[in-house]
Amino acid sequence: MTPAGIVADPALSLPNIPWEDRPAGSSSVVWRYSRNPVIPRDLLPTSNSIFNSAVVPFDGGFAGVFRCDDWTRRMQLHRGFSEDGLRWELDPEPIRFDSGDDEIGTFVYGYDPRVVRIDDRWYVTWCNWYHGPTIGLAWTTDFETFHQGENAFLPFNRNGVLFPRRIDGRFAMLSRPSDDGHTPFGDIFYSESPDLRFWGKHRHVMGPVANSWQSTKIGGGPVPLETSAGWLLVYHGVITSCNGFVYSAGVALLDLDEPWKVVARARPYLLSPQTAYECVGDVPNVVFPCAMLCDADTGRLAIYYGAADTVTCLAFTYVDELVRFAQEHS
Amino acid sequence: MTPAGIVADPALSLPNIPWEDRPAGSSSVVWRYSRNPVIPRDLLPTSNSIFNSAVVPFDGGFAGVFRCDDWTRRMQLHRGFSEDGLRWELDPEPIRFDSGDDEIGTFVYGYDPRVVRIDDRWYVTWCNWYHGPTIGLAWTTDFETFHQGENAFLPFNRNGVLFPRRIDGRFAMLSRPSDDGHTPFGDIFYSESPDLRFWGKHRHVMGPVANSWQSTKIGGGPVPLETSAGWLLVYHGVITSCNGFVYSAGVALLDLDEPWKVVARARPYLLSPQTAYECVGDVPNVVFPCAMLCDADTGRLAIYYGAADTVTCLAFTYVDELVRFAQEHS
Amino acid sequence: MTPAGIVADPALSLPNIPWEDRPAGSSSVVWRYSRNPVIPRDLLPTSNSIFNSAVVPFDGGFAGVFRCDDWTRRMQLHRGFSEDGLRWELDPEPIRFDSGDDEIGTFVYGYDPRVVRIDDRWYVTWCNWYHGPTIGLAWTTDFETFHQGENAFLPFNRNGVLFPRRIDGRFAMLSRPSDDGHTPFGDIFYSESPDLRFWGKHRHVMGPVANSWQSTKIGGGPVPLETSAGWLLVYHGVITSCNGFVYSAGVALLDLDEPWKVVARARPYLLSPQTAYECVGDVPNVVFPCAMLCDADTGRLAIYYGAADTVTCLAFTYVDELVRFAQEHS
Amino acid sequence: MTPAGIVADPALSLPNIPWEDRPAGSSSVVWRYSRNPVIPRDLLPTSNSIFNSAVVPFDGGFAGVFRCDDWTRRMQLHRGFSEDGLRWELDPEPIRFDSGDDEIGTFVYGYDPRVVRIDDRWYVTWCNWYHGPTIGLAWTTDFETFHQGENAFLPFNRNGVLFPRRIDGRFAMLSRPSDDGHTPFGDIFYSESPDLRFWGKHRHVMGPVANSWQSTKIGGGPVPLETSAGWLLVYHGVITSCNGFVYSAGVALLDLDEPWKVVARARPYLLSPQTAYECVGDVPNVVFPCAMLCDADTGRLAIYYGAADTVTCLAFTYVDELVRFAQEHS
Amino acid sequence: MTPAGIVADPALSLPNIPWEDRPAGSSSVVWRYSRNPVIPRDLLPTSNSIFNSAVVPFDGGFAGVFRCDDWTRRMQLHRGFSEDGLRWELDPEPIRFDSGDDEIGTFVYGYDPRVVRIDDRWYVTWCNWYHGPTIGLAWTTDFETFHQGENAFLPFNRNGVLFPRRIDGRFAMLSRPSDDGHTPFGDIFYSESPDLRFWGKHRHVMGPVANSWQSTKIGGGPVPLETSAGWLLVYHGVITSCNGFVYSAGVALLDLDEPWKVVARARPYLLSPQTAYECVGDVPNVVFPCAMLCDADTGRLAIYYGAADTVTCLAFTYVDELVRFAQEHS
Amino acid sequence: MTPAGIVADPALSLPNIPWEDRPAGSSSVVWRYSRNPVIPRDLLPTSNSIFNSAVVPFDGGFAGVFRCDDWTRRMQLHRGFSEDGLRWELDPEPIRFDSGDDEIGTFVYGYDPRVVRIDDRWYVTWCNWYHGPTIGLAWTTDFETFHQGENAFLPFNRNGVLFPRRIDGRFAMLSRPSDDGHTPFGDIFYSESPDLRFWGKHRHVMGPVANSWQSTKIGGGPVPLETSAGWLLVYHGVITSCNGFVYSAGVALLDLDEPWKVVARARPYLLSPQTAYECVGDVPNVVFPCAMLCDADTGRLAIYYGAADTVTCLAFTYVDELVRFAQEHS
Repeated sequence: MTPAGIVADPALSLPNIPWEDRPAGSSSVVWRYSRNPVIPRDLLPTSNSIFNSAVVPFDGGFAGVFRCDDWTRRMQLHRGFSEDGLRWELDPEPIRFDSGDDEIGTFVYGYDPRVVRIDDRWYVTWCNWYHGPTIGLAWTTDFETFHQGENAFLPFNRNGVLFPRRIDGRFAMLSRPSDDGHTPFGDIFYSESPDLRFWGKHRHVMGPVANSWQSTKIGGGPVPLETSAGWLLVYHGVITSCNGFVYSAGVALLDLDEPWKVVARARPYLLSPQTAYECVGDVPNVVFPCAMLCDADTGRLAIYYGAADTVTCLAFTYVDELVRFAQEHS
Repeated sequence: MTPAGIVADPALSLPNIPWEDRPAGSSSVVWRYSRNPVIPRDLLPTSNSIFNSAVVPFDGGFAGVFRCDDWTRRMQLHRGFSEDGLRWELDPEPIRFDSGDDEIGTFVYGYDPRVVRIDDRWYVTWCNWYHGPTIGLAWTTDFETFHQGENAFLPFNRNGVLFPRRIDGRFAMLSRPSDDGHTPFGDIFYSESPDLRFWGKHRHVMGPVANSWQSTKIGGGPVPLETSAGWLLVYHGVITSCNGFVYSAGVALLDLDEPWKVVARARPYLLSPQTAYECVGDVPNVVFPCAMLCDADTGRLAIYYGAADTVTCLAFTYVDELVRFAQEHS
Repeated sequence: MTPAGIVADPALSLPNIPWEDRPAGSSSVVWRYSRNPVIPRDLLPTSNSIFNSAVVPFDGGFAGVFRCDDWTRRMQLHRGFSEDGLRWELDPEPIRFDSGDDEIGTFVYGYDPRVVRIDDRWYVTWCNWYHGPTIGLAWTTDFETFHQGENAFLPFNRNGVLFPRRIDGRFAMLSRPSDDGHTPFGDIFYSESPDLRFWGKHRHVMGPVANSWQSTKIGGGPVPLETSAGWLLVYHGVITSCNGFVYSAGVALLDLDEPWKVVARARPYLLSPQTAYECVGDVPNVVFPCAMLCDADTGRLAIYYGAADTVTCLAFTYVDELVRFAQEHS
Repeated sequence: MTPAGIVADPALSLPNIPWEDRPAGSSSVVWRYSRNPVIPRDLLPTSNSIFNSAVVPFDGGFAGVFRCDDWTRRMQLHRGFSEDGLRWELDPEPIRFDSGDDEIGTFVYGYDPRVVRIDDRWYVTWCNWYHGPTIGLAWTTDFETFHQGENAFLPFNRNGVLFPRRIDGRFAMLSRPSDDGHTPFGDIFYSESPDLRFWGKHRHVMGPVANSWQSTKIGGGPVPLETSAGWLLVYHGVITSCNGFVYSAGVALLDLDEPWKVVARARPYLLSPQTAYECVGDVPNVVFPCAMLCDADTGRLAIYYGAADTVTCLAFTYVDELVRFAQEHS
Repeated sequence: MTPAGIVADPALSLPNIPWEDRPAGSSSVVWRYSRNPVIPRDLLPTSNSIFNSAVVPFDGGFAGVFRCDDWTRRMQLHRGFSEDGLRWELDPEPIRFDSGDDEIGTFVYGYDPRVVRIDDRWYVTWCNWYHGPTIGLAWTTDFETFHQGENAFLPFNRNGVLFPRRIDGRFAMLSRPSDDGHTPFGDIFYSESPDLRFWGKHRHVMGPVANSWQSTKIGGGPVPLETSAGWLLVYHGVITSCNGFVYSAGVALLDLDEPWKVVARARPYLLSPQTAYECVGDVPNVVFPCAMLCDADTGRLAIYYGAADTVTCLAFTYVDELVRFAQEHS
Repeated sequence: MTPAGIVADPALSLPNIPWEDRPAGSSSVVWRYSRNPVIPRDLLPTSNSIFNSAVVPFDGGFAGVFRCDDWTRRMQLHRGFSEDGLRWELDPEPIRFDSGDDEIGTFVYGYDPRVVRIDDRWYVTWCNWYHGPTIGLAWTTDFETFHQGENAFLPFNRNGVLFPRRIDGRFAMLSRPSDDGHTPFGDIFYSESPDLRFWGKHRHVMGPVANSWQSTKIGGGPVPLETSAGWLLVYHGVITSCNGFVYSAGVALLDLDEPWKVVARARPYLLSPQTAYECVGDVPNVVFPCAMLCDADTGRLAIYYGAADTVTCLAFTYVDELVRFAQEHS
């Protein structure tokens, strides 16, 4: 057991995790990277915005799948690589997924990817349009070739997040059933699959909380992190002001064996839109976490989040502090 | 091969099918039973309405699962029996489904059932509330005990209709993904399952048609009937007038092996709300088919449909005429 | 104490109450008058509809205040008289309320009146437009001259119903705060006044019930009837179908001393739109009770209700049966 | 000058006008035909409904252009003929309009026609879909060949009604600008054209009236009739109940020389949905007048109107009574 | 009479009023404090935002009741103190109101407080949730203990503002009846109470103005200031752009004896969202005044307003200039 | 033929066109002026904002018609003059249009002007309120006196843009039919007029593009520029995020002789809201081009656009680059 209570795994030792110490005087459990955004909207010459993207350790450095909306504002997924998790090189060509089935493999648009390693494959899930938004699923071993499988669910769904290991022998996924627009409702559900092809055992995990930052809808964020206190889930929640949605980030702990049971759930948010890059952009007032890196040796946690649906940012915390925050503010 | 082109099966011989000849002078492909409604709203002393219900041959006569809204207008499912398919006796007690899992087995409300025989079991699918409407699934061998399994899909879904045999070795279901209200959109999708527990291979079947009786949404109706020309699917479609939805019934043929491919689809409706019992009631202007009986020897087809969300009615046709209608008006 | 448990009062002896026995074979707690509607839409030559109206015993016969929408569909209040509560004569001229204050006394439109006797005055409350719908208040001793006071509340409000006696020394009123349109929400509140001029001590009484005939909103109906079991409150509730609102009638018992406390509340409705005159008219599917007559000697209860926002109807029951229904189906 | 004040014209002598005397005891200015509907919904074997149609004297009898929605509920225009204006024969084939321009001549759908004779041509105007609803325009001399011209206006528009003669040397039309759905607003405007090709001099005529049967929107009805008191305009108005729109008919008088100036406008409606065939059908609660026949010798007026968007009906009055009604109830 | 026309009162001498002279070159009647915001969003470690708050002279310095939304975004009221009205110390604990009645005293949430001194008590009014937003009322003599009374009105109401003295012997309050959401309408009403417990004599004061910054809704701001020209009312108004509400501040003068009569009302706004702290935040584009300090000796006026629903700001003017502005731009 | 392919005309030589070279390192086809905004919101002492305005060469310098919303936020048109197109002097008095007809000449409000020279007149078109927004039309020879004619179309319409010369002998205009609010749809149409008084030959030009920056609606921008490749049309398009509309600018080429035929249309936008002055203001996230200046000798193009509905800005490009961009990204 590591100091942070993380269920240890050699892969989790991540000495080159991007990091910045908590600013002097700050008492926030999560703090922002001082040089945010880490990825500007125009890193690619044809990109309108780069945000809500997923990053994993890869080959001594980092790889990721990035949501890049282009100048037509078509939503695409691009792969990218980085030595330090801060300076990124993105492939200007969108990912072309291999699929044996034209019906499924015709890419209309995709967004908000998550990436998780299970065994020796990296799985990508994303919001994939197939007669409505649903959860697309693909895997890669090299971030060169991406093999696309069946969509996990029927439309309408978003924010599909795989667990990093099997639960009770089956793959497990969180998702947020939706409608076909700017859905004004949304709970997090849990589903299982023996083979990543057929899904069932759908369970309700948690829903919005009245009179709070998460009163309209919630959805899963980064891949859950296994800790001795439960699955550490960072997620987003939405409150509706008279001028639209405001997206913030929060934290919960799910039962390790029955992850649809909520062990703890912090009432306060972790991060809400407060900086210029979070409040101003294509969609004002959005903080949307999609990936976390963790160094098991130090308990450091680096959270990647989209800001204002325009840029990609970083925030930091420690696993044990985050777990404690979830427990103590539940 | 029967004259009607029905894929023959001893079980399909149904000499006691409820029936009435086409009225003199009528040229409609489908005609109403002259003594509609067959089931009045108050057949049970506590029923507000009985409609959108499913009927199958059973034990020499007929059995069914009926949507009975009670005087609180809570939506319940009741079983019922009949000698002739016309005079019905309904159990005043709602069906209590057996389920080993409290999470799934807690019945909140259910409606719009379909019943289909596969092998030696009758399977019931219905719109089942589990943190939103989804597709509930149960089976019975005797219409006494009903064994409830996992919900087939995540919410929000309605109009789950099982095929009467496996497709490519797997169970197959049509459904209509929805939102959490009076959904103003809706396409029919197809899904497969190896075990009725985990579902996948989701395919889009068909959607609304602009400027027509089915311009708002469509959804599967009775269990599809296998014919040499394809799966005969009677379904409902909705048009939105300035005073709300109008539900009519239509017909299509689906490919036998790949039922998500539409072979033929009649542009005109089969039946639209035109009689007093279809135009006036708890929801005016609703014709909603949920079950069909077929006698393979004569090709007779009896369609049970809900009218005005209030009563249950019957209409008649011949399989071969219906198939031809779908083909010729496609 | 009368057999029906009504708190006796000589005024409550009403031998000429309109009445019809329960039809043979009926087991409903409330049954309709066989000659409904008692008041047709065109009783006045200029009336488009006459409904949602209030009736009281008066001068050996009956008097009432009637909502009469004219051929411009302007909503007006008319007085009327009847010997038997069945055949009515209405004044073709709308009531002109006397008010010393032009600001309040300018009649824009009014509807859905209730009438109650307290001491030696009859008080009329109605939905009165004053920069929005609110509760108008007037009194008369002779149904000739009507003295208008201040509106009870700020807009937006509807369905103001006075109790027939003071509670804790103060006048008491139920009402249903609203918005400025076809309000899609609504709870019943209770308020008190020392003088019918200033109102306060606002208390929440009860709200809608999910998945039921009263899931959208509820509002008070006739003046509550004092019984030993509590205030007998008949009220309306609304469910929203895809084709609009459906108004039904229900029953509850409120605490005699603290009427904002619900003692019992029947889950089933008493009466829902099922006849042609309730389902078809200016607003389809409306049953809207506004007045009750009670004969304490026999426990007979005659309920006047508007049907389809078009005509006025009658239904009957016994007080003790209604009380028991509320208690047993709570 | 005829007794009715109609500006006389030999063509207006119409001894075979369909007619039925005012029922005994009726004091209504307009009364319904006792055998309504004159045209049932299924007069054509493929018609779902026939309504909102236009009729003119033709060749000793009558001809007309009819809105016939077929069993797909596609909106089409059909021509028809009648000896007596009561029994009609309709061409089962929709009208095919001749147009030299594919862009304009491609018929998507059309509805709610009006027909008017100017000089020796009959002009048809209708709601014509061209990237939205607008006003289509065609002419015929024989009701065999119909020559289609340019659409009068940009979308979105409905209820285009030509005046039967030039105003100040120019053709003149009323219309009701709309949006692309079930428009919840609508005023009547006036426009002029030197050549039926280019339109301008747009003037506002009149709009809805608060708290009345015409509080949501209004639109022109039959072709205005010239009288010494002004242009007699029968039109429709809409009020929005909690269950949708209610369409009634009203009357106004427009200035003969500057028809955008309203001389008189009756506050009460002429006809509101009150019969079963007006209250029940594809769209409940619709009375929608589209044509009038007038016999100048007797002052008789026969008004054709659509009922419940399902059937075609007739109502009768006298021109002078209608003029007086508009003047006295203004 | 003071130079500014303020109705003098020793209490109004306020030499330590926060102040900054009008910037050189400015011709605006109201100018912003150069160091805005005076209260940052994170003054309390647990505050998400501090805004729409009320300040009064107290004990030689200043006290106030502050809206502090915490990190769950729950809306709470906190008390605070300041020497100079610029640097504030806030109690990190929310105010706990004393109430003898659990039904009323259970605090769900509260926001947008106003504070006014009448006789020797300070009264706090705020938007208080009791089965919907309504006007809560409490008083204190020391800003330590707060005594809560009955809610002034039924829901749904917001922006309750007490007058600083009795009118015609009764307490008087402005308020803005609402609905249960982001209300898209709203007028200011006036009400009276003999005892702060029962309220009546409701009068309409003023509503929105078409085609202006106050076209959607308006609501009272700071406690009105008595001047010889009338009650000086600073208030907020809302215009709806395609991207939501924009809140600005305006000014009116109300009759001293009949404050529901508007004596003057400036057409232009005083202050609209133009700075970064007004345009960017939890709700972009909000200027929302809630309190004013006035020094009768100099006529200086300091207006506290919430900006972007995030921070608290100050703006300055002179009473006589503001009165003149209201009069001259009416 | 000029190098840029512009159809040459001495008037198009514009050596004093405002200009700034493309910034080093930029590869954008259009680049912003480094000192944006060129016109601040408060250039006039009474202006709330100055934006969506039109500029033309005039008398050796430049003149323009400017949308200036005042402090009541009433929308007005003001004329202005400039030597260099950068520093502007605006008339503080709104333009008073001369019209012989009170019905048309009563100015309620106007906005979003365009100005074009045809022959020796400058024509102004704008969104003019006449019982709804429509297209106002006036001309001037001196920017002193403005002669107003008839509105071009019936309401509801916006963004009327005249072509700079006759097409097929007739005046030609683009416009965007709308509804009466923040219209959520909108296509560009083309119309012709022989006399600028009567309009017809309406043709559909182009509509929104799904899944792009122009998915909600589009509308014409500056007066089209004639090039050998077609009419160069810069226009605006809107995408709807969960927080409202985002307006960007795009480019298309229309056929020279039949301008309703689209020759090329760039899929990417030219300019989207990305700077603070485009993202923050009265309406966040708006880039709205209304005028272009072109120097035929150099091919320089200066585009004036409104930013955030608050200020006026400039961007630059070359005609030939813009034409090529439209062609290559079509």
